[in-house]
Amino acid sequence: MTKQTAYQLNPSIIAQQYIDTVNRQTTSIAKPINVVGLIASQDKPSFAYARATQKKFEANGIHYELRNVERLALENQILSLNSNSDVHGIFIYFPVFNNQQDDYLRNLVDFSKDIEAGSNYWTRKLYANDRLALTSDPTKKALLPCTPLAIVKMLSEIDIYNKNIQRPIEGKIVTIFNRSEVIGRPLAMMMSNDGGIVYSFDENGPLKFENAQPAEVDISRAEALSQSSIIITGVPNNNFKKVSALEIQPDTICINFSSNNNFAADISAHTHFYIPRIGPMTVAMCMRNTLRLFNIFHQAA
Amino acid sequence: MTKQTAYQLNPSIIAQQYIDTVNRQTTSIAKPINVVGLIASQDKPSFAYARATQKKFEANGIHYELRNVERLALENQILSLNSNSDVHGIFIYFPVFNNQQDDYLRNLVDFSKDIEAGSNYWTRKLYANDRLALTSDPTKKALLPCTPLAIVKMLSEIDIYNKNIQRPIEGKIVTIFNRSEVIGRPLAMMMSNDGGIVYSFDENGPLKFENAQPAEVDISRAEALSQSSIIITGVPNNNFKKVSALEIQPDTICINFSSNNNFAADISAHTHFYIPRIGPMTVAMCMRNTLRLFNIFHQAA
Repeated sequence: MTKQTAYQLNPSIIAQQYIDTVNRQTTSIAKPINVVGLIASQDKPSFAYARATQKKFEANGIHYELRNVERLALENQILSLNSNSDVHGIFIYFPVFNNQQDDYLRNLVDFSKDIEAGSNYWTRKLYANDRLALTSDPTKKALLPCTPLAIVKMLSEIDIYNKNIQRPIEGKIVTIFNRSEVIGRPLAMMMSNDGGIVYSFDENGPLKFENAQPAEVDISRAEALSQSSIIITGVPNNNFKKVSALEIQPDTICINFSSNNNFAADISAHTHFYIPRIGPMTVAMCMRNTLRLFNIFHQAA
Repeated sequence: MTKQTAYQLNPSIIAQQYIDTVNRQTTSIAKPINVVGLIASQDKPSFAYARATQKKFEANGIHYELRNVERLALENQILSLNSNSDVHGIFIYFPVFNNQQDDYLRNLVDFSKDIEAGSNYWTRKLYANDRLALTSDPTKKALLPCTPLAIVKMLSEIDIYNKNIQRPIEGKIVTIFNRSEVIGRPLAMMMSNDGGIVYSFDENGPLKFENAQPAEVDISRAEALSQSSIIITGVPNNNFKKVSALEIQPDTICINFSSNNNFAADISAHTHFYIPRIGPMTVAMCMRNTLRLFNIFHQAA
């Protein structure tokens, strides 16, 4: 195994490999695959991102309708799409209300159309180590949430993830800043399942995950960072103290998935393995999930 | 209809009427009704509250086991209680993690044992105006979440809630500070279903609910408060500016359900209808829900 270069870790390039696979598979499907993206924001960068997602899907054999809706219309839109058998996937651009209601909406999406795999149906399977999409059919694999999956797939391109062993990061220390239900907690579970010792921080303090089991732990940010081989950040808060080169080991792998970068500017000079955004990989995983959902739930219908 | 006095609005006294009804019904049920309460806190006041809840249930024919568990053990405890057919109700003392994971846990409780009716199964029914517990059986009524129900039942003791008409607060203006998925949003839906024009505030701004439909609105706190006949607060944040007598009409009905009172001290002199806590009513509604769930889902088993 040769060491990857920073160039090869460009998320767009890695993502393209997965998108090419999706493309090959969609061309062999006769029926159109229809996804609807719902955006309730008037924010220009959000729109640009949504348009880019749409183009990527469309260019690879998945019809993607982008609908701009009032935020208060989202609930009825989701219910209507859930019951429309011509729609096979639903994507919602969050945050919308920026509170618990966003979680309510996320969970309102029927699991068979939840291409982000962010609803409780899928996260429960992950936490329960249930690998099947439907308990009744052992041939159909469960979905994994897009962003955690994107991060793990990115990491598996680096030789720290030893693909030749069953637990590819056995004994490696990982620090994750974010323990949301959609990204941070599932990611900690997945990486500890891969053998990592994961320190998971949020504003309420740290937890330690080993073998997909969380435990209480008394460790400071400084201790966790100084021991880690992999550091992953996703704190959309400008008050977060950016992780600086002084806090980490040389050649630590640093991945940021927050819209505001949680790493200080000195990080890029300190390590080759610095990935400041994973957006393109998340889109690719979302396309992969779309295809998987279609094959499991919608192909025969 | 005679005007109630502040004394008669003591939530413990109103609650007792509902508890007496529960008591009469449980004595006619041969099979024991079993509820398990899970508390993951070591906090003394929380424990005292949990013990008081337990005593109230036990004294009225519902067996209530209180378990003190590690917070990280809660998930497995809930799953185990869900699958235990001898357990008919589950109550969790929140907050536990104080983040999205609490919502995850709340939704992990099987809806047939969710005596608080705080999980998505029940709130979805409320938002969809679906009054049935099971779509397949028109004789079984859906549950309503405990705290919103407690508040509406308290209000219906006051003559502002005109029980003689179908929409008992037709045209009345209501302000609610809290739009959580568990209390504030369902409460706004319920009160607007009862004819109220509800201004619902949270940290992201106001919404207006009429006929169970939310709409965008541009109204200040001062305007909403000065127009309201009923003001309900539930902001567990010390930075919230307490509602003072200067901001409200005389004889406004004021109800606080937050652990830290959101009304200033001058309120009690300003109106007879000041209810600084509704805890005992919430417990009574929870007992009522327990009995309803037992009758719908567990009696025959």
